[in-house]
Amino acid sequence: MEALSHHDLTVFFTSVALLLMSARICGELAQRAGQPAVLGELLAGILLGPTGLGSVLPELTRSLFPTEGPVAVALDGVTTLAIVLFLLVAGMEVDLSVIWRQGRTALSVGVAGIVLPFVLGLAAGMGAPVAFGMSPESDRITFAVFLAAALSISALPVIAKTLLDLNLYRSELGMIVIAAAVLNDLFGWIVFATVLGMMGPGDAPAMDVGTTIGLTLGFTLLVLTLGRWAIHRSLPWIQAHSTWPGGVIGLALTLALFGAAFTQWIGIHGIFGAFLVGVAVGDSAHLRERTRTIISQFISFIFAPLFFASIGVTVDFAEHFDLALSAAVLALACTGKVIGCALGARWSGMPRREAWAVGFGMNARGAMEIILGLLALRYGLINERMFVALVVMAIGTSMISGPTMRKLLRLEKPFRLNEVLDPKAFVRTLAAVDRFAAIRELAGPLCASQGLDRAKVESAALAREAMMATGIGHGLAVPHARIEDLSRSAVAVGISVDGIDFDAPDSQPAHLIFLILTPINDDGAQVKVLAEIARRFSDGPTAGDAVAVRSFTEFLAILKTRATELGA
Amino acid sequence: MEALSHHDLTVFFTSVALLLMSARICGELAQRAGQPAVLGELLAGILLGPTGLGSVLPELTRSLFPTEGPVAVALDGVTTLAIVLFLLVAGMEVDLSVIWRQGRTALSVGVAGIVLPFVLGLAAGMGAPVAFGMSPESDRITFAVFLAAALSISALPVIAKTLLDLNLYRSELGMIVIAAAVLNDLFGWIVFATVLGMMGPGDAPAMDVGTTIGLTLGFTLLVLTLGRWAIHRSLPWIQAHSTWPGGVIGLALTLALFGAAFTQWIGIHGIFGAFLVGVAVGDSAHLRERTRTIISQFISFIFAPLFFASIGVTVDFAEHFDLALSAAVLALACTGKVIGCALGARWSGMPRREAWAVGFGMNARGAMEIILGLLALRYGLINERMFVALVVMAIGTSMISGPTMRKLLRLEKPFRLNEVLDPKAFVRTLAAVDRFAAIRELAGPLCASQGLDRAKVESAALAREAMMATGIGHGLAVPHARIEDLSRSAVAVGISVDGIDFDAPDSQPAHLIFLILTPINDDGAQVKVLAEIARRFSDGPTAGDAVAVRSFTEFLAILKTRATELGA
Repeated sequence: MEALSHHDLTVFFTSVALLLMSARICGELAQRAGQPAVLGELLAGILLGPTGLGSVLPELTRSLFPTEGPVAVALDGVTTLAIVLFLLVAGMEVDLSVIWRQGRTALSVGVAGIVLPFVLGLAAGMGAPVAFGMSPESDRITFAVFLAAALSISALPVIAKTLLDLNLYRSELGMIVIAAAVLNDLFGWIVFATVLGMMGPGDAPAMDVGTTIGLTLGFTLLVLTLGRWAIHRSLPWIQAHSTWPGGVIGLALTLALFGAAFTQWIGIHGIFGAFLVGVAVGDSAHLRERTRTIISQFISFIFAPLFFASIGVTVDFAEHFDLALSAAVLALACTGKVIGCALGARWSGMPRREAWAVGFGMNARGAMEIILGLLALRYGLINERMFVALVVMAIGTSMISGPTMRKLLRLEKPFRLNEVLDPKAFVRTLAAVDRFAAIRELAGPLCASQGLDRAKVESAALAREAMMATGIGHGLAVPHARIEDLSRSAVAVGISVDGIDFDAPDSQPAHLIFLILTPINDDGAQVKVLAEIARRFSDGPTAGDAVAVRSFTEFLAILKTRATELGA
Repeated sequence: MEALSHHDLTVFFTSVALLLMSARICGELAQRAGQPAVLGELLAGILLGPTGLGSVLPELTRSLFPTEGPVAVALDGVTTLAIVLFLLVAGMEVDLSVIWRQGRTALSVGVAGIVLPFVLGLAAGMGAPVAFGMSPESDRITFAVFLAAALSISALPVIAKTLLDLNLYRSELGMIVIAAAVLNDLFGWIVFATVLGMMGPGDAPAMDVGTTIGLTLGFTLLVLTLGRWAIHRSLPWIQAHSTWPGGVIGLALTLALFGAAFTQWIGIHGIFGAFLVGVAVGDSAHLRERTRTIISQFISFIFAPLFFASIGVTVDFAEHFDLALSAAVLALACTGKVIGCALGARWSGMPRREAWAVGFGMNARGAMEIILGLLALRYGLINERMFVALVVMAIGTSMISGPTMRKLLRLEKPFRLNEVLDPKAFVRTLAAVDRFAAIRELAGPLCASQGLDRAKVESAALAREAMMATGIGHGLAVPHARIEDLSRSAVAVGISVDGIDFDAPDSQPAHLIFLILTPINDDGAQVKVLAEIARRFSDGPTAGDAVAVRSFTEFLAILKTRATELGA
C-alpha cells in the first residue's frame, strides 16, 4: 500500500496545524476589525506561503508546503474535501422559499443584479480577453462567459453575516437582499458549471460539451425537485431509526460527497454537486436546528479556514499582483452589481437610499468568488494575474459592503456590553455589605480609570440609589448615574459572594453589581446598557456562574458564551 | 503543483462517500443489535474491500480503493487525520481526577489489570514469537513488549458506552471501572509509544532509541502538567476574545495536530500526541459542554467511521484469518484482563459477582486495540495474520463485555418507550371528542394488533378512567389498564388537534393520548411506562410538535431527538 512515510506524516501534521492555527487567528483578527473572516484566513495562507514566509525562508516553506510528492497530494485531498463540505454548508444556508415570499422586489433585484454584470462581463471578456487575464490556451467565448458568471455571482455566507452584524437580517430589506442573492447564486453557479462543461472534461472519459451541459442542468433540476422531496421524506425516518444527530450528519455528508462525485464525473467540479445537495438538505423543515449547527460550526470553523489558508500557500500573490487589472476588475464588478441591483430595487418602488444599500449589500463576493477563481485557474481558463485580481475584487467588495450599507441606512454601530465594561474597574470581591458602600467601592477604580471626579460621581450615583433602590432581581443590581464630563458610557463590575441587599423585587440579594455611568446628553445610552445587562443575565444560573469567576477575562468568557447560547 | 486530477477527484469523492455511507449504516445496525459501532464500521470496510466486494468484482474494488497513486495517498492523508482527531476525542474523555476520587479500589483494579496481562503477553511474546505472528524482521524483545502492551490496553470509549447502556456509568462500580481504565490506557499507550521508540524512527532523521523514549516520557509529563495548566488558564481568555465555540474548537484541533507532529517527529506515531493533548484539553473545567459535544459528535460520527471502514478495505481479512491464532490471542487477552481485574477488585473487598463484572467491563478492547494493531502492522512489527487476530480479539472482547456484565449484575434490559409503542395502533387524528370515546378509539387498533379481547380491554380501561381521570397536564393523557393475557406492555398513541378534556390538573385539554396496557402480573411495567412518558413529554412544546406530526415515523423521530436533547 502506498502510504505516507514517517517523515511525510510529520510534515503533513505540521502543515495542517500551521494552516489551521494561523487561519483561525487571522480570521478572528479580521472579524474583530469588522472584516469578513475569509480575508484573514486567506491572509494567513499568504503569510505562510511564498509571498510571506517563503520570501524570507524559501527552503522552510518548500519543505512545509511542498508542491510535489505525497504530502502535496495528501494536502490537496484534505483541502478539496474541505471545500466540498464548505459548499454543502453554503448550500444549506440557501432558503428557496424566501424567493417566493419576497416576490416581485426580490425578483427584480435578483434579475437586474445578474443581467447588468453579466452583460458587462461578456463585453469585457469578448472585447479584451488578454487584458483580463485569459490564459493563452483558452477559448474566447468560454472565457467571456466565465467572466460574466464571475461578475454576477454573490457570496451568500458573507452577505448573511453582514446583514446579521447590521441587525438587518430579519428586516424586509434584509430578506429582499437574501432572496435576490439566492437567485443570483443559483444562476451564477449553473452558468459557471456550464462554463466548466464548455471546456470539456479534461482527462475524464470523453463526453461532449452538450452532454455535460445537459447532465448539469438535468442533475440540478433533479436534486432541487425529486431529491429535495426524497430528503425531506426520509429525514424523519432516519431520525427515528438511527443515532441522533449522527445519522442525519452522516446522511448529509454522504449525499454531498456522492453529489460531488457525480458532478466531477460529468466534467464540472465536485463543489457544484455538494452545493446542490446542501440546498436540498437545508430546505427540509425536518432538519433540526442542532444538527444544522453541528455541521455548520465544525465545517466553518475548521474546514473553511483550512481551505482558504491553503490557497494563500499555493499562489504567489506578490508576484502575480497587477494593480491595473485588479482595479479594472474591481470597478467592473462594483459597477455592474451595485448599479444593476439598485436599478432593480428602484423599479419596484424602493426609496433611493435603500435601493443603493441593497446594491452594496449584494455586491459582496467573498469566499464564493475566490473558489470560482481558483477552479478557473486550475482548469487553465485564467492566468495567475487574473486569479489574484479576482481575489482582490472578492475581498474588496466584501469589505465595503457593510460600512457602505451602514452609512446609507444611517445605522448606528450595534451596542456591545463588553465594549463599555472597564477592565480596570472589575472588583472580584466586594468588601461592602450595604448597597451604598458597594457603589462607593466601585466608583473608586472606575473614576480613577476614566479620569473622573470621584466625589461628583459618587454623589450622583448615591442620590439616584437613595431615590429608589436598583436591585432588579435574579441577583443583579444596576446602580447608575449620568455624568457631565463623560464622552462614552463606562461600567464597573463588582462581585459579592455573600450578596448585598439592593431591595430587589424578588427580595434576593445582589451578587453581581454593575455601576453604570453614561454621558449626560446621551439619552439612549443608559437604557441600552440596562437592557443589555438584564437580557444577558436574566436567568439565575448565569449570575451564579459569574460569582464563580476569578478574573475579568473569565467574566468576559461567561458573558460571551452566554450570549452565543442565547443566539445573540 | 501536484494536484489530484479530474478523474482522481471523481474516484476520491466516490470512495469517501462509499466508506462513510456503509460505515454509518453498518455502525447503526451493529448498535441496534447491541454491539459496539466499531464492529459495524469495520465490517463495512471489509464488505467494500478485497474480502467482500473485491472477491466478486476485483477490478471495481481496485479502481475505487486503489493501493497506489494519488488517490491512495489522498485517502491515507484523510484517514490518518481522522484517526488523529479520533484520539483527540478519546483523550478528551479521560478524566484524570476520577483516578484519585476512586482511590484504592480503582488503583488496585487498574494495576492488577495491567500486571497480569502484561506478564502473560511478555511470556507469550518471548516464548512463541513466531506463533504469535511476529514479522520476520522484528526484534523478539520489542515484539514481546508490544504484545504485553496490546494485552493490557483497554478501550475507554467502548467501556464508557457499555456502562452508559447498562445505566452503570454514574454508579460506584462504573466509576471504578472508568478510573481503572484511564490508568490502563495511560500506561498502555506510554508502553506502546516506547515500543515504537524501541523500533527506531524508521525513515525519520536518525535518533537513537534512548532519545526517543526519553522524549516520549518527557513530552507526556510536560503535556499532562504544564500543558494541562496552560490550556486551563488560556481557555477563558480564548472564550472571551474569539468567536465561540470556533475559537476553542480551533485551539483543540491545532494543539492535537502539533502534538501529533511532535510525537511523529520523535519516532512514535502522531496519535499519541493527539491523545495526550485530548487528555489535557478535556481536563479543563473551562471547556463548555457544548464545545465538547460539537467536537466529539462530528469526529465520532464522521471521522471515526471513515477510519475504521478504511481499515477493512486495506487488509484482506479472509485471506489472513487464522482461527487458532485468533482463538489463542482472544483467550490470552480475556484470561489476563478479566482475572487480573477481578483479583484486584476482590483484594480491595468487592463482592465476588461485582468483581467479575468489573473484570469483564475492563476487558473490552474495541477501537484502541485495532488502532494499535494497525500501527504495529504498518511499522512492520507484526504480520497480517496477527493483525486480523488482534482485530478479532478487540471485537470479541467488546461484544461479550456488556451482556456478561448484565448477567453477572442481574440487570434488567433498560426500558425504551419506542419498544412498547405499537406502530399499528397509532391514530393520527382521533375522531373522539370525549375521553371515553378516545379510549375506545385507541383500544380498537391496539387489540386488533396485539390479538386481545377488545371488550375486556375497553371495560378495564374505561373503569379505571371513570375512577379518576388520567390527564396529567401539558396536553398529555395516559389512560391505562392491566390486562390478563398480555405478555409484554403495549401502548397505542392518538393525537387530537382540538384537544380532549381529560380533567388534567392544569385544566389543559389533552392533545397526545397514550393508551397503556401492561401485563397483570408485572408490577413495575405500568409505572415505568408512565414515568417515561411524563419524562419525555414534560414540557409543552413537544406535545405541540407531536400534534404537528403526520405519521408514526415522524412521531418516533420527535421522541428520539427529544430524548437526545435532554441527554437521555
